[in-house]
Amino acid sequence: MLFEIDKNSDFSIHNVPFGIFSTENSQKRLGTAIGDKVLDLKGLAELGFFNALDIPLSVFGNDYLNNFIGLGKTKTNSVRTLIQSLFQSDRLKEYPHLWYHLKDVKLHLPVYSRDYTDFYSSQEHATNVGRMFRDPANALLPNWKHLPVAYHGRASSLVGTEVGIYRPKGQVLPKGAQQPVFKATERLDFELETAFIIGKDSEQGSPVSTAEAEDYIFGMVLLNDWSARDIQQWEYVPLGPFAGKNFATSVSSWVVTMEALEPFRVRGPVQDPEVLPYLMYEGNKNFDIRLQVSIRDQGGIKTEICRSNFKYMYWNMAQQLAHHTVNGCNVATGDLMGSGTISGPEKDSFGSMLELTWNGTQPLTLNDQSERSFLLDDDTVCMTGYAEKEGVRVGFGELSNTVLSAKG
Amino acid sequence: MLFEIDKNSDFSIHNVPFGIFSTENSQKRLGTAIGDKVLDLKGLAELGFFNALDIPLSVFGNDYLNNFIGLGKTKTNSVRTLIQSLFQSDRLKEYPHLWYHLKDVKLHLPVYSRDYTDFYSSQEHATNVGRMFRDPANALLPNWKHLPVAYHGRASSLVGTEVGIYRPKGQVLPKGAQQPVFKATERLDFELETAFIIGKDSEQGSPVSTAEAEDYIFGMVLLNDWSARDIQQWEYVPLGPFAGKNFATSVSSWVVTMEALEPFRVRGPVQDPEVLPYLMYEGNKNFDIRLQVSIRDQGGIKTEICRSNFKYMYWNMAQQLAHHTVNGCNVATGDLMGSGTISGPEKDSFGSMLELTWNGTQPLTLNDQSERSFLLDDDTVCMTGYAEKEGVRVGFGELSNTVLSAKG
Repeated sequence: MLFEIDKNSDFSIHNVPFGIFSTENSQKRLGTAIGDKVLDLKGLAELGFFNALDIPLSVFGNDYLNNFIGLGKTKTNSVRTLIQSLFQSDRLKEYPHLWYHLKDVKLHLPVYSRDYTDFYSSQEHATNVGRMFRDPANALLPNWKHLPVAYHGRASSLVGTEVGIYRPKGQVLPKGAQQPVFKATERLDFELETAFIIGKDSEQGSPVSTAEAEDYIFGMVLLNDWSARDIQQWEYVPLGPFAGKNFATSVSSWVVTMEALEPFRVRGPVQDPEVLPYLMYEGNKNFDIRLQVSIRDQGGIKTEICRSNFKYMYWNMAQQLAHHTVNGCNVATGDLMGSGTISGPEKDSFGSMLELTWNGTQPLTLNDQSERSFLLDDDTVCMTGYAEKEGVRVGFGELSNTVLSAKG
Repeated sequence: MLFEIDKNSDFSIHNVPFGIFSTENSQKRLGTAIGDKVLDLKGLAELGFFNALDIPLSVFGNDYLNNFIGLGKTKTNSVRTLIQSLFQSDRLKEYPHLWYHLKDVKLHLPVYSRDYTDFYSSQEHATNVGRMFRDPANALLPNWKHLPVAYHGRASSLVGTEVGIYRPKGQVLPKGAQQPVFKATERLDFELETAFIIGKDSEQGSPVSTAEAEDYIFGMVLLNDWSARDIQQWEYVPLGPFAGKNFATSVSSWVVTMEALEPFRVRGPVQDPEVLPYLMYEGNKNFDIRLQVSIRDQGGIKTEICRSNFKYMYWNMAQQLAHHTVNGCNVATGDLMGSGTISGPEKDSFGSMLELTWNGTQPLTLNDQSERSFLLDDDTVCMTGYAEKEGVRVGFGELSNTVLSAKG
């Protein structure tokens, strides 16, 4: 092995995720993360290491992973397994210039997503929201257990890790008021999500079945669906969230392939009532991925406020994609499909401030003893996620964005 | 003048819209429509006619107008006025190979829209929908007169004129049933809309004011927001339309510039209650554009079923863009912003089958004596629109798409 990897690293040799990085002296290019280091895949390609795979060199020098992903799973998996075997040999020993410390590189949004869809597939989250804002006795809407509810998000405002999030302004209806006012949101929130990335184009008019769906899924990232709850609440009936969410959505840097996540499959929840045939599936399609959210306050003190798990999802990714395309809607390589907020059954597993503080009525106390109902300026929201089983760990690294005060 | 233009042509010399066309022997390129002909702008550029404007030749040979639009209004307006003066001189006489008959070319989607937003800005439409599905006495929701309600549409399924629209399948809740069924929609509908096309990128975090908005609007097209009413009704609470709409949205071929539409400005409706300051505006920001919808049935017989007008819109484009960006959401050149269904006050000015047949309860009789509650397979929906004043006519041509039977 080329160097030791900490056993708690998200980037074990079983992972080999793909991402886009740049350094002070080099432009954006493809890389992978191993341990605390980044391997320059463009440099590796230029040295001829991938020659046998017949991949155009330019693919490794792109600003996004899309063209690489578009090569298809046969080639991208070969790249991944080749890197694994190179790392276990000593063939890369003579190329120290291909390695960077993770802390020395700038990480970028990994894919260009023409379209971004956000699902609403956690039963615990949908139930919490229904209990707070609708009828506690009938928290889930009638359609919820029949179809994976979703809406289209805004692709232009997708950003990567470390990008600051300006506190948005907008219309808010003060409690008891008849007229809205315009102001900076006072209920800025995160939503803990994962997202999958489409790896293959589908044709308009041609559905992708649950059996075919996994062929169309390249890999996964963490996603923070930033939300201004007061703006959202005033606007969202009847056409859904708009200005309460489209100011920013952030995405983690390293796309973890479905092949790396393969060992972590688990059974999903029993779906009752039975779903329609086009949503039926075979095999284990949930994944045991542990998720955490922390807030790092202005003073730099970090407090973990949520521990959830992707395995809780009621609707799995294959079902989501089958539903998305069953009407003939087409998907394209790089499209991003968010899970929706991933809440678990326990109070400390809720995936948003809205739920953790029960709409602001039960503030959290952070480690510096300050209280939070919703996010304050200069708070940094840090999301992490990893799967671990029998000593094999595969993770996403950290998605970290700081709230900036409203502009202007 | 190079040739006579019919006085009822949408493409008078006052128009000079921009579009993308191809012929049997040539790939996609930029063109303009004049009378019943298309002028090859790539050919014109290659002959050096635009040399003084310092525009890269490649811009005229693109698959979409985006790079051309991205040149900025100073340059694109210069191209337009230069074409007008060339046409009025005889300098193009010696280049007959630059002209094609409109009927001999293939027209394409004119822009690549990374994002597509659809507003809901016709008071008559929102009122009709509210009367049908909610409370007739309180048809408009409380937020409607305070903000231009909108949702994000699906960009991947945008198509151009003449592209067939497969009847979508999906989940539908039969009347009185507790469980949904899966089937092809029985309530396929059009929505008569216009859309504006963003001409300039904005920066994330930086709102575009109503005063600045028109600088960001390149031009307009007609838009058909295809809708499956039964699928939409079952899915849309709480997150808005998804599978009921994202199977296809069609867009007309010729982008009519805001400069061509300038003579047709009219005052918008009085907005009461007064809007918040960020939505206030000065000047006439509505446009008197007559809109028509016809159905051409399987036998080729055409029936006009709707005459509406863009001037009815409650919220204007400057307000829509100001609202869209006030939270810091960024827009990009080529983005498409649909108006929402444009209904007028009279029954024959309603912009959808849903309203024209009052949710299917009052079927229309077509000229071949057949009845329509919603669209049938092989029906062709034709939308047209033009502005006319003092002998000057500027129009969009026809947006025409045929319903194909459900696939598979």
